[in-house]
Amino acid sequence: MMAIVEDRLRLFPDTTTIDRDELRIGGHSLSSLAERFGTPLYIYDRATMDASAGKYRDSLKRHYPGNSSVTYAGKAFLCRAIARWVNQQRLWLDCTGETEMAVARAGGLNAASLIVHGTNKSTADLEYALRQAGTIAVDNLSELNRIASIFRSMGQSQFSGQPFPELWLRLQPGLAVATHHVYTQTGQADSKFGMTAEEIIEALRIGRSAGLHITGLHFHQGSNFRNPDPLVPAIELALDLAKEAGFEGAWHFCPGGGWGIAYHEEELPHPDVDLYVRVIARHVLRSCRANGLSLPILHLEPGRSLAARAGVAIYRVGAIKRRGRRTWLLADGGLADNPRPALYGAKYSCLPAAGLGRELGESVSIAGPYCESGDVMIEGLRLPRMQEGELIAVPVSGAYHLSMSSNYNGARRPAVVWLERSQARLIIRRETLADLSQRDLPFA
Amino acid sequence: MMAIVEDRLRLFPDTTTIDRDELRIGGHSLSSLAERFGTPLYIYDRATMDASAGKYRDSLKRHYPGNSSVTYAGKAFLCRAIARWVNQQRLWLDCTGETEMAVARAGGLNAASLIVHGTNKSTADLEYALRQAGTIAVDNLSELNRIASIFRSMGQSQFSGQPFPELWLRLQPGLAVATHHVYTQTGQADSKFGMTAEEIIEALRIGRSAGLHITGLHFHQGSNFRNPDPLVPAIELALDLAKEAGFEGAWHFCPGGGWGIAYHEEELPHPDVDLYVRVIARHVLRSCRANGLSLPILHLEPGRSLAARAGVAIYRVGAIKRRGRRTWLLADGGLADNPRPALYGAKYSCLPAAGLGRELGESVSIAGPYCESGDVMIEGLRLPRMQEGELIAVPVSGAYHLSMSSNYNGARRPAVVWLERSQARLIIRRETLADLSQRDLPFA
Repeated sequence: MMAIVEDRLRLFPDTTTIDRDELRIGGHSLSSLAERFGTPLYIYDRATMDASAGKYRDSLKRHYPGNSSVTYAGKAFLCRAIARWVNQQRLWLDCTGETEMAVARAGGLNAASLIVHGTNKSTADLEYALRQAGTIAVDNLSELNRIASIFRSMGQSQFSGQPFPELWLRLQPGLAVATHHVYTQTGQADSKFGMTAEEIIEALRIGRSAGLHITGLHFHQGSNFRNPDPLVPAIELALDLAKEAGFEGAWHFCPGGGWGIAYHEEELPHPDVDLYVRVIARHVLRSCRANGLSLPILHLEPGRSLAARAGVAIYRVGAIKRRGRRTWLLADGGLADNPRPALYGAKYSCLPAAGLGRELGESVSIAGPYCESGDVMIEGLRLPRMQEGELIAVPVSGAYHLSMSSNYNGARRPAVVWLERSQARLIIRRETLADLSQRDLPFA
Repeated sequence: MMAIVEDRLRLFPDTTTIDRDELRIGGHSLSSLAERFGTPLYIYDRATMDASAGKYRDSLKRHYPGNSSVTYAGKAFLCRAIARWVNQQRLWLDCTGETEMAVARAGGLNAASLIVHGTNKSTADLEYALRQAGTIAVDNLSELNRIASIFRSMGQSQFSGQPFPELWLRLQPGLAVATHHVYTQTGQADSKFGMTAEEIIEALRIGRSAGLHITGLHFHQGSNFRNPDPLVPAIELALDLAKEAGFEGAWHFCPGGGWGIAYHEEELPHPDVDLYVRVIARHVLRSCRANGLSLPILHLEPGRSLAARAGVAIYRVGAIKRRGRRTWLLADGGLADNPRPALYGAKYSCLPAAGLGRELGESVSIAGPYCESGDVMIEGLRLPRMQEGELIAVPVSGAYHLSMSSNYNGARRPAVVWLERSQARLIIRRETLADLSQRDLPFA
């Protein structure tokens, strides 16, 4: 096999094989999945998700002597089947807002494994979170004051026997990680997220005087980074604050998520999860020792690094434009289901679903069908000379595609299929015209 | 009134007034609309849309002696109420794909006023367009060959008495306009859109030999530009090709749309529609005369410049973070309903819905509630010192917001209200949890 194809295969799910020049994932030929479910089609390979979660758990066990948990970041991609998987893997789930909490509950997740995030939680979000208990990561003083006021007015008894939620405080460490794009940095000093160290101290005072159950600290520095070093000063800052807060016993500490993944063969190897976990564990241990703090329950919040590589997008190529300067393959999806190239300049790769024995004889650009120049998925990628009607498979499509998807140009959002133990199950059905028309009221 | 508020008001719909320090549009106080319909809320002011369409019609009448039409670009924002408005204004509608065609028809539009665009039309798109007739703007030779083959195999008789659609050819003029962002340029030489001059000649040959009804030429150079000069060489190129094609009688010529609008007071004045139309009309006349061509029916395709300024987004401010370096107002919408700041670096302005007599004493940044650093709508804008719970109104929100909106973080898409003759009608209802759950299948 050509070296470049071998490299590209490392972007695909673990169960990907080539059989008679055809791509297969979890034993399924992509052509047969496309035939059965139509295109554009998103597939998720459970074995890859399991293995990714396992890596986090193993690394935590190896490097961290205290208790720990892995929290899947629902904003990467969430539906009932994913919540079910989170539950089966005994992960926690990071939810933003009422909708994600409701999906998590509908997928069978216990409220105790929910962490509710959000930089401007609505009253509905807060009330839902308070009814369900779980844990709320408090973003700001205004939110904390609202929670305190609800707590004062309703008291414990109003929560149908549920304990009042535990609260974590979100610290803005004033330090960013190096990410690909400024949009994926969240930890820098003028970010909209979290509280400054001074605000955290004030939050602890408010919480104490209101009798709230503040049990943890949280921060998140950014998304899709591959150098863990900038985490170190943020961990140190956070644990100094934890000392000041007087956390003890089974308190919680979460240095966020955001560990990266390779999207393109040029970005290989994939960032090493064990390195990430080791750096965090080592510095949490060191700072706790230095501060005389009891070891916290350590929470990590990966989204992308659990889901991205498990997901593959399958498109059918329609018109092909071959010109001197550029060959365009026009696919049946793009910007509407995957806005990451337009939003972040993300660089993707792909392989044809079949005919993998062919020489990669042509450099192509791949665009979607939408009336928008930003609707370009891939530029300057070597592929075999493709024919109209062929299928392409875009790897690393599992995170921040469908969760950010739109109906631009009337696009109907794709079907999603879950591959588990030789079964291919439809977990999200393709959007229909009727779905899109439901909110569109007649002009009476 | 302060000069800066006066300037900012010019970004708002024509019917905007300030009454007892409160913003009103079409006579409705924004506070009462927010109370009645909730937030985030989008409103469209019909009077402003009517006036914008009227400007195009008047300018065409003034500068172009031939027949002409104005085509609303549905991708800017489309629903049944908009299609109804298009119909009442006797505009044409530019649709991309089956969904937009279906919405147009459901809104009462006659197929004869539809132009079907799309750079990679699906078979479903083409079949729908062929069944409905109207006009198809053919993007590429592959599409033309598919149409020719459908025409050969089905013949006229299959179209239930409808005439076979007229076809226009989309030229890629190899020339871009100066836009704010490379994503909004479409005319440059290596763009994914349209056919080169050589391909147009080939298309004419194919069309002739297949007996297809090719009746027009189309190009589109980009979106949100304010200098019409780059249109001139493209018009000349297109009309040279029209001569070569031998178009005569009632043939159609469409130099696209994309005329800009000011989004922020610093971008004022709004680009002059009359200037745009005058430049186009003059050069079409000149080139037709030079080439001995009969005057085409001239079509213009504005989307943004008809809808953008008619639309206003109303948000409620939740948490406010006041820090030395920056004040953050956290609103209840943002990236999910308006991805333009993140996609294009678009710069917006806003006003509070009430308390407009206050001094603009604070420079603020305004972000949405989503877990994403790109979820920042506005940076460094002077506002009165705002309180939590106040409403802000973001003008120029009528185009490419909701049509590109997503459910990121479980966001439920906003309600849309149509203001017409002192009535405020809900034309799109707010998205519910049930809407969002419909495609999410139980894991049987």
